Amino acid sequence: MLEFNAAFATRDQNFISLKWQIGYHQEKKERPEDWIAAEVPGAVQLDYAKALQWGPYWYADNWKDYDWMEDVYWTYRAVFNKPEISEDRQVVFYSKGIDYEFDIFLNDKHLHYQEGMFSPVRIDLTDHLLETNELMITVYPAPKVHRKSRDRTQADRSVKPAVSYGWDWHPRLIPLGIWDETGMLVMDRKKLNEWEIEYRLDDGLNQADVTVQLLGTNLRGLSYEIMIKDQVGSEKLTISGILEKDQELIDFELTDLSLWWPWDQGQPYLYEVVLKLKQDSLVLQTVTRRIGFRRVRLVMNPGTWQVDGFPKSRSNPPMTLEINGRRIFCRGTNWVNPEIFPGIITRETYDTLTDLAVKANFNLLRIWGGAIVNKDSFFELCDEKGILVWQDFPLACNPYQGTPEYLKVLEQEATSIIRRLKKYPSLVLWCGGNELYNNWSGMTDQSLALRLLNSLTYRLDPERPFIPTSPIMGVGHGNYIFRDKQSGKEVFQWMPVAHNTAYTEFGMPGPSSVEVLKSFIPDDQLFPPKSGTVWETHHAFNAWVGNTWLSEDMLEYYFGPSDNLETLVSRGQLIQSQGYKVIYEEARRQKPYCSMALNWCFNEPWPTAANNSLINWPARPKPAFDAVSESCRPVIVSGRVEKFTWRKGEEFSVDLFVLNDSHRKIPPGSVKVKIAGDEEMEMLTWDFPEIPENQNLEGPTARIRLPEWESEVFELVLEVIGFPEMNSNYVFLYTPSVNTKRSEIPELNK
Amino acid sequence: MLEFNAAFATRDQNFISLKWQIGYHQEKKERPEDWIAAEVPGAVQLDYAKALQWGPYWYADNWKDYDWMEDVYWTYRAVFNKPEISEDRQVVFYSKGIDYEFDIFLNDKHLHYQEGMFSPVRIDLTDHLLETNELMITVYPAPKVHRKSRDRTQADRSVKPAVSYGWDWHPRLIPLGIWDETGMLVMDRKKLNEWEIEYRLDDGLNQADVTVQLLGTNLRGLSYEIMIKDQVGSEKLTISGILEKDQELIDFELTDLSLWWPWDQGQPYLYEVVLKLKQDSLVLQTVTRRIGFRRVRLVMNPGTWQVDGFPKSRSNPPMTLEINGRRIFCRGTNWVNPEIFPGIITRETYDTLTDLAVKANFNLLRIWGGAIVNKDSFFELCDEKGILVWQDFPLACNPYQGTPEYLKVLEQEATSIIRRLKKYPSLVLWCGGNELYNNWSGMTDQSLALRLLNSLTYRLDPERPFIPTSPIMGVGHGNYIFRDKQSGKEVFQWMPVAHNTAYTEFGMPGPSSVEVLKSFIPDDQLFPPKSGTVWETHHAFNAWVGNTWLSEDMLEYYFGPSDNLETLVSRGQLIQSQGYKVIYEEARRQKPYCSMALNWCFNEPWPTAANNSLINWPARPKPAFDAVSESCRPVIVSGRVEKFTWRKGEEFSVDLFVLNDSHRKIPPGSVKVKIAGDEEMEMLTWDFPEIPENQNLEGPTARIRLPEWESEVFELVLEVIGFPEMNSNYVFLYTPSVNTKRSEIPELNK
Repeated sequence: MLEFNAAFATRDQNFISLKWQIGYHQEKKERPEDWIAAEVPGAVQLDYAKALQWGPYWYADNWKDYDWMEDVYWTYRAVFNKPEISEDRQVVFYSKGIDYEFDIFLNDKHLHYQEGMFSPVRIDLTDHLLETNELMITVYPAPKVHRKSRDRTQADRSVKPAVSYGWDWHPRLIPLGIWDETGMLVMDRKKLNEWEIEYRLDDGLNQADVTVQLLGTNLRGLSYEIMIKDQVGSEKLTISGILEKDQELIDFELTDLSLWWPWDQGQPYLYEVVLKLKQDSLVLQTVTRRIGFRRVRLVMNPGTWQVDGFPKSRSNPPMTLEINGRRIFCRGTNWVNPEIFPGIITRETYDTLTDLAVKANFNLLRIWGGAIVNKDSFFELCDEKGILVWQDFPLACNPYQGTPEYLKVLEQEATSIIRRLKKYPSLVLWCGGNELYNNWSGMTDQSLALRLLNSLTYRLDPERPFIPTSPIMGVGHGNYIFRDKQSGKEVFQWMPVAHNTAYTEFGMPGPSSVEVLKSFIPDDQLFPPKSGTVWETHHAFNAWVGNTWLSEDMLEYYFGPSDNLETLVSRGQLIQSQGYKVIYEEARRQKPYCSMALNWCFNEPWPTAANNSLINWPARPKPAFDAVSESCRPVIVSGRVEKFTWRKGEEFSVDLFVLNDSHRKIPPGSVKVKIAGDEEMEMLTWDFPEIPENQNLEGPTARIRLPEWESEVFELVLEVIGFPEMNSNYVFLYTPSVNTKRSEIPELNK
Repeated sequence: MLEFNAAFATRDQNFISLKWQIGYHQEKKERPEDWIAAEVPGAVQLDYAKALQWGPYWYADNWKDYDWMEDVYWTYRAVFNKPEISEDRQVVFYSKGIDYEFDIFLNDKHLHYQEGMFSPVRIDLTDHLLETNELMITVYPAPKVHRKSRDRTQADRSVKPAVSYGWDWHPRLIPLGIWDETGMLVMDRKKLNEWEIEYRLDDGLNQADVTVQLLGTNLRGLSYEIMIKDQVGSEKLTISGILEKDQELIDFELTDLSLWWPWDQGQPYLYEVVLKLKQDSLVLQTVTRRIGFRRVRLVMNPGTWQVDGFPKSRSNPPMTLEINGRRIFCRGTNWVNPEIFPGIITRETYDTLTDLAVKANFNLLRIWGGAIVNKDSFFELCDEKGILVWQDFPLACNPYQGTPEYLKVLEQEATSIIRRLKKYPSLVLWCGGNELYNNWSGMTDQSLALRLLNSLTYRLDPERPFIPTSPIMGVGHGNYIFRDKQSGKEVFQWMPVAHNTAYTEFGMPGPSSVEVLKSFIPDDQLFPPKSGTVWETHHAFNAWVGNTWLSEDMLEYYFGPSDNLETLVSRGQLIQSQGYKVIYEEARRQKPYCSMALNWCFNEPWPTAANNSLINWPARPKPAFDAVSESCRPVIVSGRVEKFTWRKGEEFSVDLFVLNDSHRKIPPGSVKVKIAGDEEMEMLTWDFPEIPENQNLEGPTARIRLPEWESEVFELVLEVIGFPEMNSNYVFLYTPSVNTKRSEIPELNK
C-alpha cells in the first residue's frame, strides 16, 4: 500500500506550493485554450462554474448546465521552479485521489497513467526537473460503457461510483478531477514509505501480539523507536532497534489492553503509535497512527440454524455482528455521499454528520456502494466516536461484467481501499456492493468481480467479515412505503409478519422542510407541487415506482387535500416519522433472530424535494430524525399497534415491550400506558421485572375502547415511572366515524 | 504444480525397481522390529492383513480387527543400489500420493516432511546416494483432533477425508500409506517439470487462443515441438521453437474446433497435445496430454430471478450448468469412494463404474467431499466418456476451523487438487464440501476455510464455477425415505410440492441383493435380520435416524411380514426402485426451474446390508439401478401418480408428460396409457405434438376406476407407439379392500 499524505513527512520537509489552473479540450492530445483557476482538491465542474460566476449547482435545474462537462478532457496545470535540494533529498508529487482516469506529465513528459480514483499516486520527480517546470494532469471524460441511455448502466464496467450517473435521489452530474489531498514536497531519500500494524488478540481479549511492518527506502542502519501511548497520552510501551533492511517486521506484545467498543457498549478506546526513524540522534521521520483493539465476527443469528423438513436447503448465513464477544444489535442507517462533488467534502462535513449519527442513537453506518469510499477523516471520526462502519465496495445495481480489463482495475482499486481502511477499528464489515444478487442488477455468486472481492478481503484482511452484497439470503430489503396501494397494507401490518435476520434497507419517504424547499424551488413552482417542475428534478415525482417520493396520493388518502405547503409538508413528515418508528422498533422486537435495522437513507448530497432521508442536505435533520432517534435509544419501552387510522368505538390495543440493547441489566419498573386525544386516558400499568443484558422483554397487551373525540389525532404515551429516558410516544389518526374523511378521497371511491 | 509420474519421463529413462517392506512402531523415532512385504500403492492395513493371512476385511466384523492400526507409526523401507549415472542425469523419487502425514528419509537423513495426501512428492536424491541405499517413509498415525468420540469429528482439522472415521454406510476403518503411483527413476537434468495449457474460446465457440506454459530445468537452448492431433490422430497444428529460459509461454490459435460435449449432448471430442523437448535432433522428453474445448458456466435457473413482495431477500443462486451455451439438465448421482482403501483403486475400477454411470443414463457425477479426490484415471475416463464431474473439496459434515495450521495444509492440498484436475474438460464444478452450511456441520459463509477455497479456485481456475457447499440456497437436500412415518407422506406426495433449483442429494434405501448378503453375513445371522448382528455393522440398523437403512417397519407397513430373505429383499428393492423413479422423474418435470437430480448414492466401498446406493460393492447393480436408468433416459414419457397403494374402486389417475433433455426436437407421437393387474386395461391415448429441443411437454391426466383384481400389484404402462425407447412403466400395490393387509400391521393399530 502506497501510503502518502502530508502527515507522512520527513525531516524539515518543504512543501512546494502549487498554484493550479484548469481548462478543457475535446481531444486527449490537445491542451486547453483557456486556463482558469482551480481548487485542489475540488472538481472540474466547480472550477468552471466559479470562473463563469454561475449560480449554485443545487438550485432548481442549474445542474443541467453541467451536462457537456462529462464528455470533454480536463487538464490541470501547475508551474513551479526547481527547488534547491541536496543529494540526499528528492521531490515527490503525491495525490490521495484523482477522479477518474488520467495521465500525469512533467514538462510534457508522460510519467503516469491510471484508471481509478481510489488508488493513491506517488511520483519521484527529481530526475525530471528543469529550472521551471510544468506539471500537468489530464483527466479523461467520465467513463461510459455505452451511450444508449444516460443512466447508471453506463458505469457498469468501471470503478467509478454509479450514483452520479443519476439515481432516484441524485441528479445526473458526474464529478471529475482531483478529489483528495494532493501536493508536492521535498523528502529525504532515506524514509519509510508505508507501514502496517497487525495484531492478534488472545482469547481473553486482554493482550495482543502486535506486528509492525515497515517498508521504506535506504533504511539500513537507521534506528527506529516505536512508542505506544494510551488514550490520555501516557507511555505504555516503547521499543527500539536498528533496521537491517528496507522491509522489517517488528513484533511485540501488549498486555492489559483497554478494548475499543462502539459508543453504546463501552468506550471507543484508542491507543496512539508513534514511530520515529532516526539517523544517529537526528529524527528523520515521525509517523503516528491510532490503533483500537477489538475482535469482530459475523455470527449466526439465534434461530437460523434450524431448517425444517425435506428437501431442505442451507441455513441462513450469519448476520449478527459480534464485537469483543458481545452480540450487537445494529441500529443504523445507509450513508450516502454527503456531496455530489467529493472534492469539497471536509473533515467538518464528516464531523457534523457523524455527530448526528450518534445523536440518532445509531451505532452502525452502512457506507453504500453506489457512492464513494469516504476519505480518511471519516474513519478517524468513526474510530473516535465509536461508530461501527459497514463498507461497500463501489459496485451498485449494475451487472458488472468479469472482463479482464474491469477485473484489473477493480483489483487495483479494491486493494487500495482495503489497505487504506483496514487500520480503522470502526470498520467491521466489508460488502461487495449494493443489491447485486437481485434481478435489477443481475449479478450472481458466479460473478468474477464478487469472487475477486471475496478473495482480496480474505487475502489482505481475513479477520474482518465479508458479505458479497446486500441483501444476502435471509436479509430483508425494503419496503419504501407507508401504505401499499395495491394490498392496502400499512407498515403496521407488513413489518410484524416479516421474519428476516436483518433489515439492511427500508425507507419511508417524506417531503423536505419548508425552508429547504424554498431554498431551491423557484417561488412560482412552490405550491402546489407538480410533476415536470423542479419538484420532479429534485425527486418528488416519478423518482421510483408509483407517485414517489412525495406520495401525494397517500397523503390525500389519510388526510384529504392539503391547502398549502406547510400543511402538506407537516403531514408528509408525520407519516415519515411514524412509519420509521414502526420499522425500527419492530426490527428491534424481533431480536435476536433479527440483528440489524438500517434505514434508507441517512443523508443526501443535494437538496431533495422529497426523499427517504432523515437529514436534508447538507446537515439539517427532518422531524423523522428525532422520531428515529427516540426509537433507537438503546433502552426503551415500545408498543406494537396494528394500524394508523382509528375510529370511534374501536378497541385500540398495544403490545408492550421493553427493548434492551445495552449490556446492562434493566431494573424492575412500571410502565403507565395512556392515550391522549381530547383528553388523556389511562389504559394499563405494567410492572416489569429485572431484564437481563441485551435482552428484550415482551409484556402484556393493553386495550381500550376509543371514545368520541374532536381531535383528528391522538397519542399513545408509554411512561416509565422514574425513568423518563425510556418513555415512548406515537401518533395516530382519529376519525369519529367511518364515513367522514376517508370518503372524500377519490381513490377510495373508484 | 509439481507434475510427475511415469508418463512424464525423459530420454531412455531408467526405472529403479524398488521392493518395499513395511512394519509398525509405537514412537516416531523408532523403527519396526519386523518387516513384511508391502504393496505400493496399497495400504498399511492390507499389507499387514495379507502377511498374517487374515480373512477379507469386508467380511462380517473383520473390520474391527484393524482398529489399533490407526494409532501406530508405519514405516516403509526400500533398499537399492546406487545406479551408475552420468553427470547430466539425476535420481528422482516421486509419489503422487502418500496418506496422510509422513517423513521421508534416505540413509537416515531426513529429506522431506509433509502433511496431506493430495500433494505429490518429488525429491532429487542424487547428492545423497551411497553405494547401497535405504529409503524410508514413516507414515504417522491417523490424524485425530480429539479422542472424545470415535467419529468424523476427529477429522475436523485435517484434509484427511472424513468418511473412514465412520459413516452411515462406511465402517470405522482409516486407511494409511502410499495410495497412488510412486517410484524412482533416472532422469535428464535438462527437462520439463510441469506444463499447463490454457485456452480462451471465442464467442462463437469455434476457435481458441491457446497458451502453453512450460516450466523446467536447464531448458535454455533446447528446442520444442508441440503437435496438436485430432481425435483420429491426424495432425491439426504443429509449432516449434527454441527455448530461452526455464519458464516459457507459447501462444497459438486453433480454429475450426470440435467441441467437447457430455455424451447425451454430443461427442466428448478430445484433442491430443504432444510436446517434444529436443537437444539438436535428440528427443530428450515427450509428454502428451489430451485437451477438450468447451465453455462451462453456472447460470440462473429460469424463474429464480423473481422474488416477490417486500421485505425481499436476494434471488436464488444459479444452479444450471451451461455447456457450450446449452443448458444441461443434470441427471446424476453422488459418487463415493469405490473402496475403503484408495490404494487398491485401479483404472479398471473406474472404468467399470463409469461404464455403469453411462448405462444409468447419468450425465453428471458429483464426487462427494467426504471421501478422496479420485486418481487421474477417473478423470481421463470421464473425459473420454463424456461424463460431467462435480468435484467437492475434502470437507464434509464437520465445523472445519480456520486455524492457521489447518488453513496452511488446506491451501497446499487444495492448490494441488486444482492444479492437477483443471486440465480435464469433464470437470465442470468445484464445490467447497458437503453439507457445510447446515447445523450438523456448523460452518458459515464467514468460515475462513471456505473463503480460502473460493479464493484459490478464483485465482487458479476462474473459468470453472465454484459453489461453497451443497446444498446452497434454493437447492433441495434429502429426503431419504419412501414414506415418512410421522406425517404419513410418501415420496409421491412430498416430491411434487417441492420447489427447488436442484436436488443434489436424495436417497431411497433398499437391501442388498441376496447373493451379496450371503457373501459377507454369516449363515446363522442371515434371517431374520436383527440389530446387533452383522446386519447392523453393515448399516441395515441404526445407521441413520429411524429404522434405517433396512426400514423393516415400512416394508411391513406395505407388505406385512416377510417370511424369508428373498421376499424381504425383493420387497425392499421394489420400494427403492419405485421411490427413485418418482424423484428422478418429478425433478425432471420441474425443469427448467429445476436443473439437477442427483441421488444419494451411486456406489459403495464395501458390501452393505442395506443402503441408498444403486450399486453394490464392488460393481453389482441393484434392481433400482435399472429403474433409475429407465427414468434417466434423455427422452421419455413419464407419469405423475399420487400414491403407492391403491384399492378396488378408487379412481387411479396419472398426469402425463414427455420429458426431453436432448437437443433434438421430438416428433409428434401417440402415447397409449394402460394399467395391467389381472388383465390389461387401456386408459387413454394421448397424441402429442412436436416438442422443442430440451423442453418438456405436459399432457392430459388419464383416469380409470380400479376393478377387483386378485393381483397384489399392478403396472402403469406408458407406451409410445413406434418409439418403444420412450416407454415407461411403474409398479403399484393393489389391495381389494381397505381392511385386508394393512390392518395386519401392528403400527396401524396403535
